[in-house]
Amino acid sequence: MKTTKPKVLAFDVFGTVVDWHGSIAAEAKRLDLPVDPDAFATAWRDGYRPAMARVRSGDLPWTKIDDLHRLILDQILNTFQITSLSEIEKQNLNRIWHRLSPWQDTVEGLNKLKRQFTIVTLSNGNLGLLANMAKNASLPWDLILSAEVFRHYKPDPETYLGVASTFDLLPEEVMLVAAHKDDLMAADRCGLQTAFIERSLEFGPHFKRQDLHIEQFINYHAKDLNDLAAQLDC
Amino acid sequence: MKTTKPKVLAFDVFGTVVDWHGSIAAEAKRLDLPVDPDAFATAWRDGYRPAMARVRSGDLPWTKIDDLHRLILDQILNTFQITSLSEIEKQNLNRIWHRLSPWQDTVEGLNKLKRQFTIVTLSNGNLGLLANMAKNASLPWDLILSAEVFRHYKPDPETYLGVASTFDLLPEEVMLVAAHKDDLMAADRCGLQTAFIERSLEFGPHFKRQDLHIEQFINYHAKDLNDLAAQLDC
Repeated sequence: MKTTKPKVLAFDVFGTVVDWHGSIAAEAKRLDLPVDPDAFATAWRDGYRPAMARVRSGDLPWTKIDDLHRLILDQILNTFQITSLSEIEKQNLNRIWHRLSPWQDTVEGLNKLKRQFTIVTLSNGNLGLLANMAKNASLPWDLILSAEVFRHYKPDPETYLGVASTFDLLPEEVMLVAAHKDDLMAADRCGLQTAFIERSLEFGPHFKRQDLHIEQFINYHAKDLNDLAAQLDC
Repeated sequence: MKTTKPKVLAFDVFGTVVDWHGSIAAEAKRLDLPVDPDAFATAWRDGYRPAMARVRSGDLPWTKIDDLHRLILDQILNTFQITSLSEIEKQNLNRIWHRLSPWQDTVEGLNKLKRQFTIVTLSNGNLGLLANMAKNASLPWDLILSAEVFRHYKPDPETYLGVASTFDLLPEEVMLVAAHKDDLMAADRCGLQTAFIERSLEFGPHFKRQDLHIEQFINYHAKDLNDLAAQLDC
């Protein structure tokens, strides 16, 4: 039984803290790309796991997410036959991942949680991306931790255990906060506490992919970050 | 000539941002240790460079500063014949490095600089130490970078160049801010811009070790962080 409160909350970022789908679809619309904005956002994100899997398996050497995002962008521009962008425009579009918008509850919820806990990221995003995003969106992290620090992508155990060892804590003194059950399950296997956040719009208005069932391995199940703060008496 | 403003300011921490000597002397006094508080602070810090040099030379494997501080603490407790501390008390004393006080101008100066620049640490302190210190002292970092991320201690070039590559910047787009000329000289050799901060009390009231002469390799010479902010039009 995990009954005592954690000391550190480690947050998944893409989908849990920021709305990647809405931000990318809005950017595609703003740039007037000849493509359905939702399909464009979905395709870009769909390339993410296979690209990371190539790094995790050793097929690719360590590659940061900015560079993986660019590899995928080049592929989908080709698939959607978008040929109007210059090299500079492609670089700027790739940086949309540095400018993703937080969900409506995010900044308020994080500030509440920060009063009682040390709040950190645990994201596959690279440090520069996460720092630029935090500055742009006013995310008040106590520390930005990334796969880049541990040289392992989630769900490798080195990432979850790395948060605990960074603060000289036991795994159960750390809680992963995420909208994705596979991430939470991997954290639970490493002995961390877990909090699930409902983000039913993560994949846009047309794709309700999130499974909201209550799970044994989840310690807290919250509607959003304000709800999690309330459940943790913040 | 380095004439354009940098985009990222990377700060040395111990001595430049926080007052290690005053904080440690005050802790020795608070604990009523049978030792001159200034001598105790000086001895602890004097063990730091030799300990890091052992890691840099490969004599010790990668060891984080918390553990180096503990090695040195055990030595100086022995030297000063202090035998009254329990293991828990020693661990707590070692964590004084996580609770160092900022200089009087630090928080205001950093907040001014943060409006115009991305402000990060570049310290030999480990990530957990720097995060705890920032939370305790309200240091508003955009990103905490450490020797621990680069697996090299300053003044190894990997640290200075690592800040630039974290943000996909050229070295001259980064400025090191430090109270130590050897640190600034090493940054200059890597192509970074440099800002020197006067901290004549760094080594306590009895040891004015800081060399305040103007140097060719220093781009900005400031009385404190508020002065640096003024020179940079913040």
